Amino acid sequence: MSTESIIVGKVRAARESMRELARSSSAMRDAALQEMAALILKKRESLKQANEKDLDAGREKGLSSAFLDRLELTDSRIETMADGLCQVASLPDPIREVIRMWRRPNGLQIGKIRVPIGVIGIIYESRPNVTADAAGLCIKAANAVVLRGGSDALHSNLTIATLLQEAALEAGLPDGCIQYIDVPGHDAVNILLKQEKYVDMIVPRGGKTLIRNVMENSTIPVVKHEDGICHTYVDADADLQMAEDICFNAKVQRPGTCNAMETLLVHRGIAETFLRKICVRLKKAGVTLKGCEKTLEIFPDMAPATEEDWSTEYLALTLSIRIVDDLDAAIEHIETYGSHHSDAIVTSGYSEAQRFLDEIDSAAVYVNASTRFTDGYEFGLGAEIGISTQKLHSRGPMGLEDLTSFKYIIYGDGQLRT
Amino acid sequence: MSTESIIVGKVRAARESMRELARSSSAMRDAALQEMAALILKKRESLKQANEKDLDAGREKGLSSAFLDRLELTDSRIETMADGLCQVASLPDPIREVIRMWRRPNGLQIGKIRVPIGVIGIIYESRPNVTADAAGLCIKAANAVVLRGGSDALHSNLTIATLLQEAALEAGLPDGCIQYIDVPGHDAVNILLKQEKYVDMIVPRGGKTLIRNVMENSTIPVVKHEDGICHTYVDADADLQMAEDICFNAKVQRPGTCNAMETLLVHRGIAETFLRKICVRLKKAGVTLKGCEKTLEIFPDMAPATEEDWSTEYLALTLSIRIVDDLDAAIEHIETYGSHHSDAIVTSGYSEAQRFLDEIDSAAVYVNASTRFTDGYEFGLGAEIGISTQKLHSRGPMGLEDLTSFKYIIYGDGQLRT
Repeated sequence: MSTESIIVGKVRAARESMRELARSSSAMRDAALQEMAALILKKRESLKQANEKDLDAGREKGLSSAFLDRLELTDSRIETMADGLCQVASLPDPIREVIRMWRRPNGLQIGKIRVPIGVIGIIYESRPNVTADAAGLCIKAANAVVLRGGSDALHSNLTIATLLQEAALEAGLPDGCIQYIDVPGHDAVNILLKQEKYVDMIVPRGGKTLIRNVMENSTIPVVKHEDGICHTYVDADADLQMAEDICFNAKVQRPGTCNAMETLLVHRGIAETFLRKICVRLKKAGVTLKGCEKTLEIFPDMAPATEEDWSTEYLALTLSIRIVDDLDAAIEHIETYGSHHSDAIVTSGYSEAQRFLDEIDSAAVYVNASTRFTDGYEFGLGAEIGISTQKLHSRGPMGLEDLTSFKYIIYGDGQLRT
Repeated sequence: MSTESIIVGKVRAARESMRELARSSSAMRDAALQEMAALILKKRESLKQANEKDLDAGREKGLSSAFLDRLELTDSRIETMADGLCQVASLPDPIREVIRMWRRPNGLQIGKIRVPIGVIGIIYESRPNVTADAAGLCIKAANAVVLRGGSDALHSNLTIATLLQEAALEAGLPDGCIQYIDVPGHDAVNILLKQEKYVDMIVPRGGKTLIRNVMENSTIPVVKHEDGICHTYVDADADLQMAEDICFNAKVQRPGTCNAMETLLVHRGIAETFLRKICVRLKKAGVTLKGCEKTLEIFPDMAPATEEDWSTEYLALTLSIRIVDDLDAAIEHIETYGSHHSDAIVTSGYSEAQRFLDEIDSAAVYVNASTRFTDGYEFGLGAEIGISTQKLHSRGPMGLEDLTSFKYIIYGDGQLRT
């Protein structure tokens, strides 16, 4: 069979399961998630063996230790994966929720009802736990799912996917609702991206190259997850101790994430006082600092921040610093160089806070808190399949609701249009 | 200047107006809409002159009288266009609406706030009133708009667009927020469709060829408006008089619209009784009927419906008829051949009604009412920019809310992530 016919076979099977899945009860889907968790725990030894194959191949290939670490399925990671499925099972079912219902003057009663999207394709990289996390969320929202993980985790992913499929069948969900594309090579991904007849949405999870490729080649709507060039602006009358803690947290707590701060903006009125303190603390934590001209006047030894730095997502312990004249200049900088992901102001001024919330056009805009909170769990959505950086359909942390669509149901008693 | 640089200039100007527009007050945007309406009425003579040019050119070109009719701007159409703008002005402002707000255990207060999408491109065909209708809705929701109408209406469209721009400026809205692409040729459209850097969403309004071209060439997210292959299923225990009225209305009241019925499904138990009555009435109204094999047993003279008929959107006084065994067969037919637009059941059975509402996966699913109600005004959305046949972002009649996105605003008092 050709690569294309294998892939078309899988996405078609997913589509064929869609109607039965959409009609399945919450109880049945929750039982399937519980069963998945139980099976993953029960089969942990075979899972670890499959994972060992990937690790061996990775070592042979000379993959970095950081990469191998992400790839490894330890006992605790297997347990976390199972726990995650149980947690998703315990969330309220988004499907069939009545979003709104109203009555028209002619007596028609119109309801807007939450329904599944249909078939969701997930394309992701190394961490094998994404196989269970993503499939769990899709199934919870009654969507069929087509998974495509990174080739370096193939054995681990395939074993997890097989367990998920078994559990789904056991719980009475339709055959075919979980598909794994195990055909090697980039071609397979590009063929998947053209199956708009069978797949309704693509969610790419991974690095920039992966996401760009998906965006450029997909004929299926993509919910994109791009750069997080996040800012914190420390205003003239900020509580400087609070500002220091927030900036430190936003930069250092987990610098590799898209919601970590990449640029610190400081009002010139408090710049020297504030920067003298925070820079010592950041340097101690191993942060490389880059400053604008005015910052360099205070710290002549600091590396200069170039024009390119302002629009760079470091994803590392590096921070660019700019002293600005006022709130307007801070907003202007963020709107010019930012990626509209997460941005914060630290201020004690009421109108400054309100203006920042109003004028910054980002998925998440903060007053007096760390940008690190942009996350489905932290927002209380119960789960997260990613963070959308687009404005259509989904924006910011994507929870279960973002994996749904809606339809209108209309109760009439003979109404005719005139 | 090259076509490309002209178009890039226009979409960039629209984008540059976006921030100021997003901050504009409801009162200012409503005043702009009122001013647009007033100016259109005031300048109706020059508008009619411009329209006369289009009509002359159209007659010379040999355009059909139906086309010329759609193109014509009569006094009453000009008044309707102005009224439409005033009506949109009177709707509640969707922007800055607090969709939801909640508090997290750590004290963070998170709000989901409605915001504009940014820059919306509208590509449309003959009727010049769309210029005002579409621009009005976009501006109401604080979006900049890039308009591209059909070449046969160029003088009319351009005159309307110029009046809208004047009125917007007069009311204090930012320069550039309404753009009209008057460069001739298909190239211009295809260049517009690649401006994903400046345009956030494309709404195509028009025939199939237009919509397919947009779908295939756009790198900008499209909210698609495709076929309406709508069904009415008359169940065994339907009130047959009600069923007759509903079917007649769904087919005949305005057959050229996407929410008109194209296929009638009838339960075999009442098929002969029901069809003998409705077919006489439909034929009298000039409807061409096509029947399945069982229908032909009752009406041997009727033309047979082919496999192709079941998936054809006639948009005309033609109807295909199929006799089905039961509700399951009706659902199966609709899910197989339908376009998931609008479908209705006529029944007096409670569980049949509920099953139909639950199992039909269409944008609008009706019990005991005509499918012709799928419309923004009829749904009470106050306005409509089209009817979406996709599941992401928007589905069914698109009102003002569908021209918005959202952002999260977060009020903290020093929260750090641990």
